[in-house]
Amino acid sequence: MVNTGEINGSSNLMDFLDEPIPDVGTYEDFHTIDWLREKSRDTDRHRKITSKSKESIWEFIKGLLEAWSGWVVMLLIGLLAGTLAGVIDLAVDWMTDLKEGICLEGFWYSHEQCCWTSNETTFDDRDKCPKWQKWSELMINQGEGPSAYILNYFLYILWALLFAFLAVSLVRVFAPYACGSGIPEIKTILSGFIIRGYLGKWTLLIKTVTLVLVVSSGLSLGKEGPSVHVACCCGNLFSSLFSKYSKNEAKRREVLSAAAAVGVSVAFGAPIGGVLFSLEEVSYYFPLKTLWRSFFAALVAAFTLRSINPFGNSRLVLFYVEYHTPWYMAELFPFILLGVFGGLWGTLFIRCNIAWCRRRKTTSLGKYPVLEVIAVTAITAIIAYPNPYTRRSTSELISELFNDCGALESSQLCDYINDLNMTRPVDDIPDRPAGPGVYTAMWQLALALIFKIIITIFTFGMKIPSGLFIPSIAVGAIAGRIVGVGVEQLAYHNHDWIIFRNWCRPGADCVTPGLYAMVGAAACLGGVTRMTVSLVVIMFELTGGLEYIVPLMAAAVTSKWVADAFGKEGIYEAHIHLKGYPFLDVKDEFTHRTLATDVMRPRRGEPPLSVLTQDNMTVEDVETLIKDTDYNGFPVVVSRDSERLIGFAQRRELIIAIKNARQRHDGVVSNSIIYFTEDPPELPANSPHPLKLRRILNLSPFTVTDHTPMETVVDIFRKLGLRQCLVTRSGRLLGIITKKDVLRHMAQMANQDPESIMFN
Amino acid sequence: MVNTGEINGSSNLMDFLDEPIPDVGTYEDFHTIDWLREKSRDTDRHRKITSKSKESIWEFIKGLLEAWSGWVVMLLIGLLAGTLAGVIDLAVDWMTDLKEGICLEGFWYSHEQCCWTSNETTFDDRDKCPKWQKWSELMINQGEGPSAYILNYFLYILWALLFAFLAVSLVRVFAPYACGSGIPEIKTILSGFIIRGYLGKWTLLIKTVTLVLVVSSGLSLGKEGPSVHVACCCGNLFSSLFSKYSKNEAKRREVLSAAAAVGVSVAFGAPIGGVLFSLEEVSYYFPLKTLWRSFFAALVAAFTLRSINPFGNSRLVLFYVEYHTPWYMAELFPFILLGVFGGLWGTLFIRCNIAWCRRRKTTSLGKYPVLEVIAVTAITAIIAYPNPYTRRSTSELISELFNDCGALESSQLCDYINDLNMTRPVDDIPDRPAGPGVYTAMWQLALALIFKIIITIFTFGMKIPSGLFIPSIAVGAIAGRIVGVGVEQLAYHNHDWIIFRNWCRPGADCVTPGLYAMVGAAACLGGVTRMTVSLVVIMFELTGGLEYIVPLMAAAVTSKWVADAFGKEGIYEAHIHLKGYPFLDVKDEFTHRTLATDVMRPRRGEPPLSVLTQDNMTVEDVETLIKDTDYNGFPVVVSRDSERLIGFAQRRELIIAIKNARQRHDGVVSNSIIYFTEDPPELPANSPHPLKLRRILNLSPFTVTDHTPMETVVDIFRKLGLRQCLVTRSGRLLGIITKKDVLRHMAQMANQDPESIMFN
Repeated sequence: MVNTGEINGSSNLMDFLDEPIPDVGTYEDFHTIDWLREKSRDTDRHRKITSKSKESIWEFIKGLLEAWSGWVVMLLIGLLAGTLAGVIDLAVDWMTDLKEGICLEGFWYSHEQCCWTSNETTFDDRDKCPKWQKWSELMINQGEGPSAYILNYFLYILWALLFAFLAVSLVRVFAPYACGSGIPEIKTILSGFIIRGYLGKWTLLIKTVTLVLVVSSGLSLGKEGPSVHVACCCGNLFSSLFSKYSKNEAKRREVLSAAAAVGVSVAFGAPIGGVLFSLEEVSYYFPLKTLWRSFFAALVAAFTLRSINPFGNSRLVLFYVEYHTPWYMAELFPFILLGVFGGLWGTLFIRCNIAWCRRRKTTSLGKYPVLEVIAVTAITAIIAYPNPYTRRSTSELISELFNDCGALESSQLCDYINDLNMTRPVDDIPDRPAGPGVYTAMWQLALALIFKIIITIFTFGMKIPSGLFIPSIAVGAIAGRIVGVGVEQLAYHNHDWIIFRNWCRPGADCVTPGLYAMVGAAACLGGVTRMTVSLVVIMFELTGGLEYIVPLMAAAVTSKWVADAFGKEGIYEAHIHLKGYPFLDVKDEFTHRTLATDVMRPRRGEPPLSVLTQDNMTVEDVETLIKDTDYNGFPVVVSRDSERLIGFAQRRELIIAIKNARQRHDGVVSNSIIYFTEDPPELPANSPHPLKLRRILNLSPFTVTDHTPMETVVDIFRKLGLRQCLVTRSGRLLGIITKKDVLRHMAQMANQDPESIMFN
Repeated sequence: MVNTGEINGSSNLMDFLDEPIPDVGTYEDFHTIDWLREKSRDTDRHRKITSKSKESIWEFIKGLLEAWSGWVVMLLIGLLAGTLAGVIDLAVDWMTDLKEGICLEGFWYSHEQCCWTSNETTFDDRDKCPKWQKWSELMINQGEGPSAYILNYFLYILWALLFAFLAVSLVRVFAPYACGSGIPEIKTILSGFIIRGYLGKWTLLIKTVTLVLVVSSGLSLGKEGPSVHVACCCGNLFSSLFSKYSKNEAKRREVLSAAAAVGVSVAFGAPIGGVLFSLEEVSYYFPLKTLWRSFFAALVAAFTLRSINPFGNSRLVLFYVEYHTPWYMAELFPFILLGVFGGLWGTLFIRCNIAWCRRRKTTSLGKYPVLEVIAVTAITAIIAYPNPYTRRSTSELISELFNDCGALESSQLCDYINDLNMTRPVDDIPDRPAGPGVYTAMWQLALALIFKIIITIFTFGMKIPSGLFIPSIAVGAIAGRIVGVGVEQLAYHNHDWIIFRNWCRPGADCVTPGLYAMVGAAACLGGVTRMTVSLVVIMFELTGGLEYIVPLMAAAVTSKWVADAFGKEGIYEAHIHLKGYPFLDVKDEFTHRTLATDVMRPRRGEPPLSVLTQDNMTVEDVETLIKDTDYNGFPVVVSRDSERLIGFAQRRELIIAIKNARQRHDGVVSNSIIYFTEDPPELPANSPHPLKLRRILNLSPFTVTDHTPMETVVDIFRKLGLRQCLVTRSGRLLGIITKKDVLRHMAQMANQDPESIMFN
């Protein structure tokens, strides 16, 4: 209370530390953020702006702009992500066709665009459009025949290899983070982890370009996962324009959650499904305000994409289907069978893919990523070309499999034997016996199924952008279509069986094989990703009717149950574990009976906890402690005897503050005493200047008692997004639990290797 | 460490307290639950069952049943709620028609059912079905004419009064909790509050019956809110069948969240919208597992309802519409205007309704609920009958307003002047000039609008079940249709204006007044409830197309912005505040700069905190403390000097444990010492038996430091669902913050009366 002039003077001298110290409040790469602190910083910021905005009109306008910046960012993300998705679609179309031939009118036209403008486009003549020339027609003037076939085959492989080589080289040289689907990393980032550059401009550019290349190269991968990554890069880009988002890691994650929704929205044209996907699968902290904004961004993106109109049908959705027949209760049985298949496929894929990725990581295989990509591309191209169902792009294949056979359908899959005196309307074609085309198609599809299953396991995880949705959907759609045609023919040829008698009389249109394909797709996608509600909603948006929600749900539920029986982890969680990221899954339930005291450090027998005392450590003591340990922070106590906790200081901020003080103020020397108290005591005149560091002290560190059950601790870490938590017993500091400790303990309890958690 | 025989003996004597004490772990009425404790109890339970299930096959099967019970409960809720909704719809149909006439073939047929069976049902003859007799036809053999009109008018009022009187009497006598919409209370219950009987069997029965009565009586109210309450009662009913849910308040709330989704799902036939409504508007704690189950329950309910088929069109949704025309950018202007109208209506409604409800509460008006209901019903019936748009049931009105005028439409609203040589297909009718019928309809609709706006304010909150969705939608739909017809006629008569020239040439079908009605409905519903995503999704499910999502969203966003500018509270939050429930809204942002120390009790100048010490208080001391204070719990400290916290004991459990010990064990007398320590010390032989109460002690009470910002404290209370939190400074106990303290502080900071928060 008694302030002498000298103390006043010295406290003035220390006041420069009350200016913001640069870099305090930022995080190191590969570290976890402190959600509570970020949110409280944002509130401070908001408070300042609100109070300022009453001062002048200019400040008021600035306040308004600030309040609207969230919507502006969403608008911009929607526009850019929608545009990029459109561009990617157009480029993929063109380059996929480039593998087969070229448009004489202009090389930049895809097959479809080339023949749009030609006059001969009645439906049947579409394939005979003269402006589109296969390579063999152009080079050796032969459209058919063995030599033309071999030439086309050869060029197909060559183009594929060229695209794949370009892609993997670009990724390696310019943006190593552009590989993979990106969803595991985005989940981790959204849960509060820092990976610098993962959502950077280079990643955005390279991922967009290489995504086009790899999809066009015909590899068994999709653009859906990467398009989430691309959208998140857009989100990061635009959030750096507004200090509200760029300077606050928690707020930035709100934008990124919305961007993830945008990614799915443009990939499938399903804005509601996208928002739910972000909510269910990707996001960690998702306030309701963000839900609304995500929805807005997803809609903007979907409409931007539609105005670019890459699918040429002015539909919003990727696979638009319309069925004309209801489904019957008896069909639930094959639907559930498809669900079982989806669950088994999901388990098989996750196990094999993780085993292969682990092998890639641990053996010398990982040293030759370019070679690996080239080899897999070559194998894919060589096997894919002879089979018409694997030669074309996977989206086209899925589209055909989903479609019901109308009267005008010319595809092999619709080669049914027609009743000649059929006078029914176009929409309502009765079940018919399969013609030879259908049987051929079945064999080819079965081969395609086996090929897709095997090659996808080796493709996902290579050093190129690769999504999983499309291959999974393709596997499911093929299996579903085969089952669907099987049931259809069974019902046609045995319509007097009891199960068919009620709903499948001759002349009735009772089985829709396309619906089976869609159900199979949902089952397989569900088995791999373990999505539930969002999966059904995406499928619901694709079909646009509540009518088929029960079959879809039956398959999705079955698939999830079957897959969960073999292991709870979806593919994304499995990859997160493989990479050792500190991801605390909201869905994991922790049910073991351990207490905080079992998890905290120091453990029994270990040296005591490194703590700082509030008023008797010198700068040198602290620097030594920092040098000798690698902890991310130190609890500050009243004294080593009483061990009464007063706060927590972050390592990074201690270092920065001490460095800053030493540089900017000569009085601070090695034996200056560091004070974390409010009012440093009066010092003898000849003692070195004290250093007051209360400013960087977190005065409200989170504490739990040693008797707290670990499930509560896990809950607290999850819900409040803590980095660490201190453990006390009757007011005495006992130890510390970090997020890494929690994750390692959880891994141990689940009989996994705790050392697999690598980051803080 | 040294155990003498005597201590062993005495500790054996104390062991009976280690048996579960009955009622420990339950809560008192009108109190808040402790989420963390409930969840940890559930984990314990789960752990026990899992470990037991390895013992025998029987236990394994029990474990499986346990695991499946969640799905079984959902199935049962879906079935019962769907059935009830179907029954309610059928009964309402019949009783609404009963006000106008009766079916000669059987009095239990509604007008529509009566005429279904008749042979003359071509469309135009539907109104002339001879089996359906108006009351005047039956009683004085006159269908038309002034005396018939007066008789019908009189009987209409009489029936309405009878229904309303029956309803209000039933509610008053049997189930006072059955009144109102129920959503405010359900929100509060889901946030962790106990209101015994609110979801009981009597409430379920009486609410179902009275809901039918009040809706049939023609009052301006809907069945959507109450149907959420009814579904939650079903949820409560079925959750009491399984000890997993009945004995754990947190698990029970998971079921109730799903039941809320079911309620909306059956009310609108919108399962996805229902789940999102529950997520966005009603629920508090909504784990993803529940999301999936809610979706399942909502689907089961929707399909149960569809198989009952109360709307007679085998459609799932309440108002099925299909438009054939796209919307144009220029139309966004009237859509946004409708949004503004919706926001203003929302604000007006909330303000007036709350003012009126407050007046009812504080003046003698509240003493005559029956009279009030009778008076409002009489006024409603007298004014409603002469206007054809208010006479019919509100759902029918909305349905007609939403519909586009097809070629076959015979309603007055579709009385356009036809071009005689029209050869266009049925679906594509160009804009036409309005006929006299449309102009009459406009006047009548304008009057209906004013009437609905005023009467709804006085209706909502009376002592009868009353929902808000349908009246809000009706207000919006009327306003929207009027605007729609206005725009249509403007465009028709001025198609050379610049804004119309591009999209509204003569002969084009450019304006769909039904779409305007739907947009207006979304705006008004949004203004009153402040729903966002779920609102748009419900509307999207009703229309079944993404096409109109932009108009709907534009209106919903505008309406929310306009309404939020006048006050952030939706109608449900306003009613929660009015009733003083302790509801900590997840959406409210707390941005003030207060600290835990400003909120905790004891405040400066107040007597110190009532604490228990761990080993030197007698039974009598504790009993005195319990008698003298009304706190819900007491912190337990090492000693009054050190104030080191060791745990927290609930008042209720202290009382039960002491009572139990006194009854069951003679050794425990008034001067027995209560020990909260692990090992009570050795006592002299003649001292009274000690009472060991460590069992009821919560050893992991939640603590924060006095420097913790209140926004963090609010966040912790919200996310972890705490009842109270202790405040410490460097390990010393300083005070306590309860949920009520937090809510009162928030009210104070928002310049509201803190005394309005009435419960703990």
